[in-house]
Amino acid sequence: MRSIGIGVIGAGVMGAEHARIIAREVSGAHLAAVADADPARAEAAAHGGRAMTDPEALIADPSVEAVLIASPDATHQRLVLAAIAAGKPVLCEKPLAVTTQDCLEIVVAETRAGRRLVQTGFMRRFDPTYRELKATLEGGTLGGVRILHCQHRNAAAPTWFTGEMAITNSLVHEIDVCRWLLSTEYRTVTVTPFLSSDPKTSDPSLFLFETDDGSLVSIELFMNAAYGYHVHAEAVCERGTVGMAHPAPVRIRREGSQSGGYPENWIPRFRDAYRIQNQAWVDGIHNGVPAVDGASAWDGLVATCLAEQIIEAKATRQRTTLKLPHNPSVEAFS
Amino acid sequence: MRSIGIGVIGAGVMGAEHARIIAREVSGAHLAAVADADPARAEAAAHGGRAMTDPEALIADPSVEAVLIASPDATHQRLVLAAIAAGKPVLCEKPLAVTTQDCLEIVVAETRAGRRLVQTGFMRRFDPTYRELKATLEGGTLGGVRILHCQHRNAAAPTWFTGEMAITNSLVHEIDVCRWLLSTEYRTVTVTPFLSSDPKTSDPSLFLFETDDGSLVSIELFMNAAYGYHVHAEAVCERGTVGMAHPAPVRIRREGSQSGGYPENWIPRFRDAYRIQNQAWVDGIHNGVPAVDGASAWDGLVATCLAEQIIEAKATRQRTTLKLPHNPSVEAFS
Amino acid sequence: MRSIGIGVIGAGVMGAEHARIIAREVSGAHLAAVADADPARAEAAAHGGRAMTDPEALIADPSVEAVLIASPDATHQRLVLAAIAAGKPVLCEKPLAVTTQDCLEIVVAETRAGRRLVQTGFMRRFDPTYRELKATLEGGTLGGVRILHCQHRNAAAPTWFTGEMAITNSLVHEIDVCRWLLSTEYRTVTVTPFLSSDPKTSDPSLFLFETDDGSLVSIELFMNAAYGYHVHAEAVCERGTVGMAHPAPVRIRREGSQSGGYPENWIPRFRDAYRIQNQAWVDGIHNGVPAVDGASAWDGLVATCLAEQIIEAKATRQRTTLKLPHNPSVEAFS
Amino acid sequence: MRSIGIGVIGAGVMGAEHARIIAREVSGAHLAAVADADPARAEAAAHGGRAMTDPEALIADPSVEAVLIASPDATHQRLVLAAIAAGKPVLCEKPLAVTTQDCLEIVVAETRAGRRLVQTGFMRRFDPTYRELKATLEGGTLGGVRILHCQHRNAAAPTWFTGEMAITNSLVHEIDVCRWLLSTEYRTVTVTPFLSSDPKTSDPSLFLFETDDGSLVSIELFMNAAYGYHVHAEAVCERGTVGMAHPAPVRIRREGSQSGGYPENWIPRFRDAYRIQNQAWVDGIHNGVPAVDGASAWDGLVATCLAEQIIEAKATRQRTTLKLPHNPSVEAFS
Repeated sequence: MRSIGIGVIGAGVMGAEHARIIAREVSGAHLAAVADADPARAEAAAHGGRAMTDPEALIADPSVEAVLIASPDATHQRLVLAAIAAGKPVLCEKPLAVTTQDCLEIVVAETRAGRRLVQTGFMRRFDPTYRELKATLEGGTLGGVRILHCQHRNAAAPTWFTGEMAITNSLVHEIDVCRWLLSTEYRTVTVTPFLSSDPKTSDPSLFLFETDDGSLVSIELFMNAAYGYHVHAEAVCERGTVGMAHPAPVRIRREGSQSGGYPENWIPRFRDAYRIQNQAWVDGIHNGVPAVDGASAWDGLVATCLAEQIIEAKATRQRTTLKLPHNPSVEAFS
Repeated sequence: MRSIGIGVIGAGVMGAEHARIIAREVSGAHLAAVADADPARAEAAAHGGRAMTDPEALIADPSVEAVLIASPDATHQRLVLAAIAAGKPVLCEKPLAVTTQDCLEIVVAETRAGRRLVQTGFMRRFDPTYRELKATLEGGTLGGVRILHCQHRNAAAPTWFTGEMAITNSLVHEIDVCRWLLSTEYRTVTVTPFLSSDPKTSDPSLFLFETDDGSLVSIELFMNAAYGYHVHAEAVCERGTVGMAHPAPVRIRREGSQSGGYPENWIPRFRDAYRIQNQAWVDGIHNGVPAVDGASAWDGLVATCLAEQIIEAKATRQRTTLKLPHNPSVEAFS
Repeated sequence: MRSIGIGVIGAGVMGAEHARIIAREVSGAHLAAVADADPARAEAAAHGGRAMTDPEALIADPSVEAVLIASPDATHQRLVLAAIAAGKPVLCEKPLAVTTQDCLEIVVAETRAGRRLVQTGFMRRFDPTYRELKATLEGGTLGGVRILHCQHRNAAAPTWFTGEMAITNSLVHEIDVCRWLLSTEYRTVTVTPFLSSDPKTSDPSLFLFETDDGSLVSIELFMNAAYGYHVHAEAVCERGTVGMAHPAPVRIRREGSQSGGYPENWIPRFRDAYRIQNQAWVDGIHNGVPAVDGASAWDGLVATCLAEQIIEAKATRQRTTLKLPHNPSVEAFS
Repeated sequence: MRSIGIGVIGAGVMGAEHARIIAREVSGAHLAAVADADPARAEAAAHGGRAMTDPEALIADPSVEAVLIASPDATHQRLVLAAIAAGKPVLCEKPLAVTTQDCLEIVVAETRAGRRLVQTGFMRRFDPTYRELKATLEGGTLGGVRILHCQHRNAAAPTWFTGEMAITNSLVHEIDVCRWLLSTEYRTVTVTPFLSSDPKTSDPSLFLFETDDGSLVSIELFMNAAYGYHVHAEAVCERGTVGMAHPAPVRIRREGSQSGGYPENWIPRFRDAYRIQNQAWVDGIHNGVPAVDGASAWDGLVATCLAEQIIEAKATRQRTTLKLPHNPSVEAFS
């Protein structure tokens, strides 16, 4: 099996991590190039591959057979379209694009290209814990899902973080992974924020979704949960429940208590998920079929499109019906 | 310290359990009499005390110095009023009475009597786990509460159980214990039931409350959760969370897994709570002051009054403002 | 049911706790008197009962129908014999007496009295967690026990504590509760201490027992475990295991981890066990038969007798055969 | 970075798994060839690489730059020596060789070759849970180790398994990983088997080691633990403990209990460990230095040499001093 040359665009925290994974942990691929506006940062992340400053030059480079985009959100759409135009598979960090319309243009372009080239980087679908959850639900011993309770907790949001960003940057992970877990779509949402004296920081918020199959999805989003980064889900079913165990591999007894730690942020929590996602993406390129469970361009659109509507629903605090546009790729890729 | 003679009214499952607790586990009291319409059932529960069929004769009996009511719900109000009229302390199983107006008459009668005679049997306030939760919240290390997540799960509801009964018989425990935990009142409620093909059994339901101090209380009520009886609460605070541990004292490894059991129903789960509640009630009679943390007649009214409004809010699925009448006892007992 | 007058001898930490339990938490009994050489201490523990300084006067007092001994170890034998001579039931804190010979004299005296009057205060037999462990083992689903792993950990031993005292004061609890759990006797012991640079503090130590039914009992005794008071047992059986869950009722998430607390010492850990033991003792007096599962005088002798041999085995570090004297009570009480 | 051609010898359960890991999950290497006496089995495991029947031809093949040995134990020594003679790095499944003398010949040969070519496949050193345990111990917050408690439990041993094989095949993992965790050597061992009516199956057994730094290592080896495959370790230190959490990522509530599963055997439990070990081995070849924490040929010898002595100590049930030969590689590789 030959090795596929990967080009990574963006060498910030996530881009550097993706470059490391491709260079050091993924079989069947190598890191051909890294592009970043800051040449030193590109160089530091290149692991001996080429360091570039122009992302479009990277996409065009013959040594780059597939593209991984981890640049700022606003650049995603343009670069994904360029990769599609070049006929190169592309794995794009979420969000796929920052508006529904921009996402739709990607779906249309990929549909015209006639084959699946785009994977949206919703890595939770490859997290072993989420996969065990889904396998248990699909195993059938618990019966149908009634309620999916989720908590997404960050230790602390940056000071410049807004309530909108909490939805477009963090909640989108929950939006995607819950519809993937349940294999259904959302029908309505009701948002209930905690109302503090400082209205800017209405944090945490509760998001309650009703789905097409009747189940309820209840999500707590807490950007300043203080104690650590903690993502949790529990599915309550007809005949029982399945939920995530504490993620730490050891328990320490010290100073009056037994404890298990939480990571500071998402990188250690989802390190395996990123590696498995990137390996599955590379395997899919070798096999000529998209990664099983990989989020498509349409899945990327759904997340962005719902986030827009959820932001409005938060302002009204009313139960709001959610809508999706027609999916132009549905006949092409089925 | 002399022993107080207790009369128990009702010798069904809970009445017999209360009689056993008074006779066998409570210090400073003895079981003077048990009344039940079925004389054999009264006799079986009397532990050597008198067995009677007429509850009003029991209340009037000189050997009965305090009354514990565990008869059918519809009889509560009349019997509590009779105990007040007799000047005898009374511990009444929930609900205190089946309508707000009936509860209000009790509050008025007790206020006129000029001293606290009524305790409503919300035994969760005496459960060691709930008390540890409240002590942690009040200890202050976690900061203010943002969200209180609760689950109330029964293994299976009787076939004659209705959605209304789930609220008036089960949710009332959550209504009471959460406002006691948070020391606040509810301002609004939104009810979102799971909508099955059979609309009678809209089970489970989610109840979302906003409180006067801004926090959110999210309660799952699932009367047919299948796997066992399970009551859980987790408070999410500014600087951390506190939640209930699994209630079983041992873990068994067998046939491929490690497991901890759940009880079949509320009696083993809250056995300690009932004993501690009844001891605190007896201690309060000795001391001439109500049990610390005991639910008052007013607390009983609040639960019944809110249950009525929550039943209406469930029908509309709308965010509904909750209201309480004037508390006539507030100046008398402060 | 009439109330039995209890006299408590000793008003130190454990004596005062026993007096409180009798006065406030046990049904069918009252605290008639407390004796302590320090009259102020006796008074403080008496809960309105009589305060005395002479333990023999307490035993002789007609208001005292049963005696609970929590005085210094060296006084136990004399006081137990006095209670037997007075024909009054006696619950004696461990150790029953400080030498095998002294214990044997108690067993002989009780046998001559012709009825069971003595219960040794091995309260772990009444701890709900140990009882659930035993019930699981006897339920039979796990098959025969192969190994019983135990840990006994104190946060810190007093500076005057010796390795011998660790055996006579702490290990005796393990000696008793494990033979009660397994319903067997020990055949051999091998002691392996941690050997520090300071030979006085050979702490922790491992004690390995072989029993008559072939199973192994492995006990870690750590008097300076630093993190808290922690008693744990896990039985490894033919078809599975059963072990103790973490004892705390809540879990706190704060500062990077989720934790469950340990108590500082044995009193909160075994509060329920003491209450249930004392209630069972009182119930036994009412019923005229010893408390089910209560440790007899012979059980008290076994613990003292084995502790003596284990101290010798620790010095040699050799596998040592354990022996018990003839039990003179075995025909009398069967 | 160029890709290293790996040859895998043996295509049984473990060999096929190693071949899959090299072919599909390891970066910087590819599966060049698989050799097995059964050509169909070799073919099935080759993932498109060459399938061979002669292991020595595989070692000699120019496309094979490094060798991974997973053939029957008795062949290990000859094949490792052949790889050393060919100057090719070799990763050999445990045991390195079946006698101390055979291991010693490997150590001598490697020493003569003048560079580290041999890694013994003690994969637990790369398991994330064991690594977290070691990192915690070395972090220093818990102080020195006093006792290391370990359990090694298999669901069921094959019928042809003997007590000796339990030591040479299973206990060797514990022998290696515990001395790696503690960075010390064993000084004595005492073996205490459960003695059943059938003396052949003296299972489980307890192994108690004293180490050079004074700590105690207590290992339970239970080849027929029935409930699943379960490896556990807890280090008891001066200021606290650290132990392994339950390995499953989810908890299921069903039929009266909450449970977390155990794997059937070691492959799912140590899947990550094998992958990380093999990646570290490949990275080491690229870097020209042995994998950090990789078990050396000497480590392989120590495990085999101690297993021989432990088998004798089990027969005597006596505390036995453990000895190691002079390490001829100690000056060469330091």
